[in-house]
Amino acid sequence: MDVHTFGLRTVGLRTGADAPVVPKTMKAWVLGGPNEMRLVEKPVPEPGPAEALVRIDAAAICATDIEVLAHGLPAMVAGGLPFNRNFTFGHEYMGTVVRLGPAVDEFRVGERVTVEIHAGCGRCERCRQGMYTSCLNYGRPEKGHRANGFTTDGGFAGYAVNHINTLVHVPDAMSDAEATLVVTAGTAMYGLDVLGGLIAGETVVVSGPGPIGLLGVGVAKALGADPVILTGTRAERLALGQHLGADFLINAREEDPVAAVTRITEGRGAHLVLECSGAPDALDASARMVNRGGRICLAAFPHERVMVDVAHIVRNNIYVYGIRGEGRSATHRAMALMRQKRFDAKAIHTHTFPMAELPTAIHYARERIDGAIKVVVTK
Amino acid sequence: MDVHTFGLRTVGLRTGADAPVVPKTMKAWVLGGPNEMRLVEKPVPEPGPAEALVRIDAAAICATDIEVLAHGLPAMVAGGLPFNRNFTFGHEYMGTVVRLGPAVDEFRVGERVTVEIHAGCGRCERCRQGMYTSCLNYGRPEKGHRANGFTTDGGFAGYAVNHINTLVHVPDAMSDAEATLVVTAGTAMYGLDVLGGLIAGETVVVSGPGPIGLLGVGVAKALGADPVILTGTRAERLALGQHLGADFLINAREEDPVAAVTRITEGRGAHLVLECSGAPDALDASARMVNRGGRICLAAFPHERVMVDVAHIVRNNIYVYGIRGEGRSATHRAMALMRQKRFDAKAIHTHTFPMAELPTAIHYARERIDGAIKVVVTK
Amino acid sequence: MDVHTFGLRTVGLRTGADAPVVPKTMKAWVLGGPNEMRLVEKPVPEPGPAEALVRIDAAAICATDIEVLAHGLPAMVAGGLPFNRNFTFGHEYMGTVVRLGPAVDEFRVGERVTVEIHAGCGRCERCRQGMYTSCLNYGRPEKGHRANGFTTDGGFAGYAVNHINTLVHVPDAMSDAEATLVVTAGTAMYGLDVLGGLIAGETVVVSGPGPIGLLGVGVAKALGADPVILTGTRAERLALGQHLGADFLINAREEDPVAAVTRITEGRGAHLVLECSGAPDALDASARMVNRGGRICLAAFPHERVMVDVAHIVRNNIYVYGIRGEGRSATHRAMALMRQKRFDAKAIHTHTFPMAELPTAIHYARERIDGAIKVVVTK
Amino acid sequence: MDVHTFGLRTVGLRTGADAPVVPKTMKAWVLGGPNEMRLVEKPVPEPGPAEALVRIDAAAICATDIEVLAHGLPAMVAGGLPFNRNFTFGHEYMGTVVRLGPAVDEFRVGERVTVEIHAGCGRCERCRQGMYTSCLNYGRPEKGHRANGFTTDGGFAGYAVNHINTLVHVPDAMSDAEATLVVTAGTAMYGLDVLGGLIAGETVVVSGPGPIGLLGVGVAKALGADPVILTGTRAERLALGQHLGADFLINAREEDPVAAVTRITEGRGAHLVLECSGAPDALDASARMVNRGGRICLAAFPHERVMVDVAHIVRNNIYVYGIRGEGRSATHRAMALMRQKRFDAKAIHTHTFPMAELPTAIHYARERIDGAIKVVVTK
Repeated sequence: MDVHTFGLRTVGLRTGADAPVVPKTMKAWVLGGPNEMRLVEKPVPEPGPAEALVRIDAAAICATDIEVLAHGLPAMVAGGLPFNRNFTFGHEYMGTVVRLGPAVDEFRVGERVTVEIHAGCGRCERCRQGMYTSCLNYGRPEKGHRANGFTTDGGFAGYAVNHINTLVHVPDAMSDAEATLVVTAGTAMYGLDVLGGLIAGETVVVSGPGPIGLLGVGVAKALGADPVILTGTRAERLALGQHLGADFLINAREEDPVAAVTRITEGRGAHLVLECSGAPDALDASARMVNRGGRICLAAFPHERVMVDVAHIVRNNIYVYGIRGEGRSATHRAMALMRQKRFDAKAIHTHTFPMAELPTAIHYARERIDGAIKVVVTK
Repeated sequence: MDVHTFGLRTVGLRTGADAPVVPKTMKAWVLGGPNEMRLVEKPVPEPGPAEALVRIDAAAICATDIEVLAHGLPAMVAGGLPFNRNFTFGHEYMGTVVRLGPAVDEFRVGERVTVEIHAGCGRCERCRQGMYTSCLNYGRPEKGHRANGFTTDGGFAGYAVNHINTLVHVPDAMSDAEATLVVTAGTAMYGLDVLGGLIAGETVVVSGPGPIGLLGVGVAKALGADPVILTGTRAERLALGQHLGADFLINAREEDPVAAVTRITEGRGAHLVLECSGAPDALDASARMVNRGGRICLAAFPHERVMVDVAHIVRNNIYVYGIRGEGRSATHRAMALMRQKRFDAKAIHTHTFPMAELPTAIHYARERIDGAIKVVVTK
Repeated sequence: MDVHTFGLRTVGLRTGADAPVVPKTMKAWVLGGPNEMRLVEKPVPEPGPAEALVRIDAAAICATDIEVLAHGLPAMVAGGLPFNRNFTFGHEYMGTVVRLGPAVDEFRVGERVTVEIHAGCGRCERCRQGMYTSCLNYGRPEKGHRANGFTTDGGFAGYAVNHINTLVHVPDAMSDAEATLVVTAGTAMYGLDVLGGLIAGETVVVSGPGPIGLLGVGVAKALGADPVILTGTRAERLALGQHLGADFLINAREEDPVAAVTRITEGRGAHLVLECSGAPDALDASARMVNRGGRICLAAFPHERVMVDVAHIVRNNIYVYGIRGEGRSATHRAMALMRQKRFDAKAIHTHTFPMAELPTAIHYARERIDGAIKVVVTK
Repeated sequence: MDVHTFGLRTVGLRTGADAPVVPKTMKAWVLGGPNEMRLVEKPVPEPGPAEALVRIDAAAICATDIEVLAHGLPAMVAGGLPFNRNFTFGHEYMGTVVRLGPAVDEFRVGERVTVEIHAGCGRCERCRQGMYTSCLNYGRPEKGHRANGFTTDGGFAGYAVNHINTLVHVPDAMSDAEATLVVTAGTAMYGLDVLGGLIAGETVVVSGPGPIGLLGVGVAKALGADPVILTGTRAERLALGQHLGADFLINAREEDPVAAVTRITEGRGAHLVLECSGAPDALDASARMVNRGGRICLAAFPHERVMVDVAHIVRNNIYVYGIRGEGRSATHRAMALMRQKRFDAKAIHTHTFPMAELPTAIHYARERIDGAIKVVVTK
């Protein structure tokens, strides 16, 4: 298979002088049964009002993609529905605008863009409040909601349609691969937003050195948090956290993280915890790490119900914020820091494969082969 | 024993024309061993800077008083310390200002006042943010922190010293007994504050028709919440909730509350839950009652660790706010509604005893004898 | 002219059993030259996605309508454009849903609705933050923005198309005329929202007893503000403010309002001012009425530039919020209070005319004939 | 005169091993008549509860000091009072803790500290909300309020007493002179806080390259604002702004700043303006620079009343925040950025004199001799 079938970089594209040639069909990876994916030929979709067609240039693999591949889409899982065959997954992608919907002038043909996942319906109570990741019409594209890769076709394909609200301009100096990391950085940024936003000089614990946690370290440090404490179990991930700016590393295999935070803060506790591990005891541990009035953002979660010391949360005036994805246009703020090189997001990008080899790429990501963290596929 | 030893109402007190006679000693109830209390003679304390001496005219019994009597003060319990003998408990009281500390002119001698519990230290990070119920010097009176009835002597006595920050003026038309309910109403008000404050037209579930829940119904309705749904297990308590303004009552013995909220909201879910039951499954049930982006305030808690579906909270962008007491001067806002007769707080006041009969009063409150809800003792 | 040409109330409409008959054309008032208006026949518009067609049952006249009639639309005025002939004005209307756009199930045919003015584009930065009244695509309907009566055809006509975001359900028990007042009450509500929302027990000054000011008194009092002080120059308007809940009335012809607020608050000053007079000295006076850290919402403005003591604002940490219209879904909160009869909005409705007599109705409103405040035209 | 009379650096002070020798009296500069100052001998003050005695090691001169010297203290000016003779001015100082009040363990003897100005009373409504710079007991030290250099003795002296809330730890690696700049940086930080705090990627205009404006550029850029546009009239100050991170410089003598911002933002306008010039047309110009829904912080002000286009503010939903000083513990956030070397605050420090030569130092600062910006006096 020829990777070039995933798109065609037209000379002069960035000037907008010539409209790029967009084929009628494209290659796209689609879900089959559990852990099955196939490469098929699909029509290239048409952008509607407030939408743009994006030629996919690169896409990163997220742990959620692996879960979707194995278990189906969240909406289907929740609804007890069968696997959604023919659905294209992949939600951390970037590319080039090749076609604009009616009245769209916010972006230009030829412009490089990266994406955030959620386009709210714009008509429910939550969207009208600006809380579009909590859209009450989630999963109802006829109402305007889109979550590419979750409820509408995503980015493991030649092209994708995106609502313009989900596009973020990519500066020339940023590589395609780095640009795919904006949604991850944006999720970390959003987590810090809901924790209050004023974090210069605050003690921030990031729990779990996965991609969101590692970029959470980078964003928190860029915004002046001091110290940033990273907890985890793998030494090489912790070392990467140090590269991204962590002031203290706690290896949970060597020291109890709550005790370590108490020690580092000289008994005062942390102000904020960005919980990205999803460990069963993570909420309880987070609540023991913060001081009275402290705040916890849950950006990950255990799949089973877990024991929680609710009394401790109440007695200590602790606030707990569950977040889904990257709201409040946080991807734009994350990109602003990245384009100013405030932290080295691309440090978490470890492997690249052609999109035609997506199964291999996913295998690397899932099994963490060769220290894989973020695996990117490119057209 | 003569109830009058608890204080002396001087003629003309309200005019401030004559300074009241304040004795050197007073009767005070103090903690002994578990479930022991004794009436002793204690010196009347002196108000310092920014403090006032209050003659106690009435005090309500809170479930926490009963717990303190049985198990000791929270700070001691947390610290594994022995019972604090000679400590005066009681934190929901009102009375008359009889002496002012230096430079205090915010209140007058002879003025009727009710109280909130927490006087923050005014010097820690949280107090400086206005989060005085999360004071980081909790339990350290030498730093300025006071929580009368918890860390400093409380109101089951003839007199108590209060920081002026904890005093709320009582209008002439309000009875002593009703005024003791301000701290309970203020806690409910604070719970609604942290949920966002703009609740006119919002669907609010109040879970648990104890005193805070019942007054939570009253406050939520006064602020325009619509509908207010009250869940509970006792028919007479639910009826009282209706009297206080609840639009829907759910008896959890007859219908699953989550199913009922879904039914009442036609599948949309509630916006906000004020959880006042402390039931083991309350957090999980609350999270199932709200819609995406919904908010839950935990004003009560189970004493044991409980199973929680954290994944549901995260996936649905739910925020959970633990609260301790009645911050952000919410007692003043609660009093503003009460003096304007926006809800009938005194409906939860069921029994009155002289303070000399505190053990009997507590017995009524603990055993809910004769339908007791709020039992008030008076001088 | 027959008023019935403005619409047709079909029997059984509210049951939704029968689709109403919608004619192809309708009567509509349109702007001509300055202070000219004509009644013309226009096509009935078609609702698009996320839109509904509303048969106008009643419309209130706003001071802004009179200004638009005299000076043209704000966008035109700002742009130095000629009068927009053939444009239908009127923005405070209510009616009945008679047709739904594709995928609209949020409202039913036959449902009574009232409106707010602004439908943001849903795709600019401000809309995405939830600040749709600050839409950066104001005046660009091709981008999705609508402000009926200002940038898109309004309500002095038989029918109007509305984005569903701008519709508010009207309960059966509320009259058509009262329902037209929701946008006015919603503007006052929004003003109080931006001032912080927690106003129980706060001292609120409402400056200027026009429609917004009078309903601002009603809303502030409903939310527990205490006291509410109303300033104005006309005794009968002030008396109406008292009916709506004002605790103190200041007649600026008899007493300097700043001095009066100082007197009433015993020198402490007010917490909040909702400025609805647009008087040249209003901002300065408001800044003298509030205490340090006080807040002022400007819901009206003088047309000329005015002298302002900026130093006083800065030295006293005062925040000033300009508002345009009725954002943050405040109309829904206003309606929630109105349907619960928390204040008597209809007290400001003084006159009713058939829509065919709009010129007369406007004459009454402009000249305040017979004490006219809100003049309503009905089909 | 011997500069050493201003304090005595004891060997081993930082270890806290030996208590420093504190003399009974000290030299202090005090106000005389207008533009008169004298060096006198005063008793060294005693720290009370929650206070520390600081030996002044360095103090920066602020424009407000020059104004106080010429016109008297603000409180006196407002009250029409005569000059406050014997009052020690100076409010941007740093030094070494030499004595602790009762129960103070938040700081150690020998610790280097810098200060913020305002210690709120801790007992008024505003302080209880955390708004201590809006303290309602401003100027009433008997109620606990302090504003050293404004209402209580300041830092042009050998020693000063500070409430611990106003102290900020100075890291070893930071020079005395740089540490005096924290209050200036903190004021800029506070200005950005009230503008919303989430400024990564926002377009921020800083108007006026005085000390606050220049450090405002540094703080805004450190937090990720992009672009930061600085307007001013002096080329060398603008160049310094570039050094501190400004992306665009506008010389108002060469281009109209509003036109320039419009050009730079390609017509979109800025999100935020931090107004630090105090120019008569600054508020109007700021309002023309921001887009709909934009925000303006006024950190400076013209001394006379000025013409303002209030209509433009209201029509465009603009919010205007007056700020007095450096609230919300912003000095701590500013110090966090400075100790992490996120911007080069010391670039604005141009001259140093011994404190004994304060008149000369003030002369340099007032007349901007030799390009003086921040002039620091040291013991």
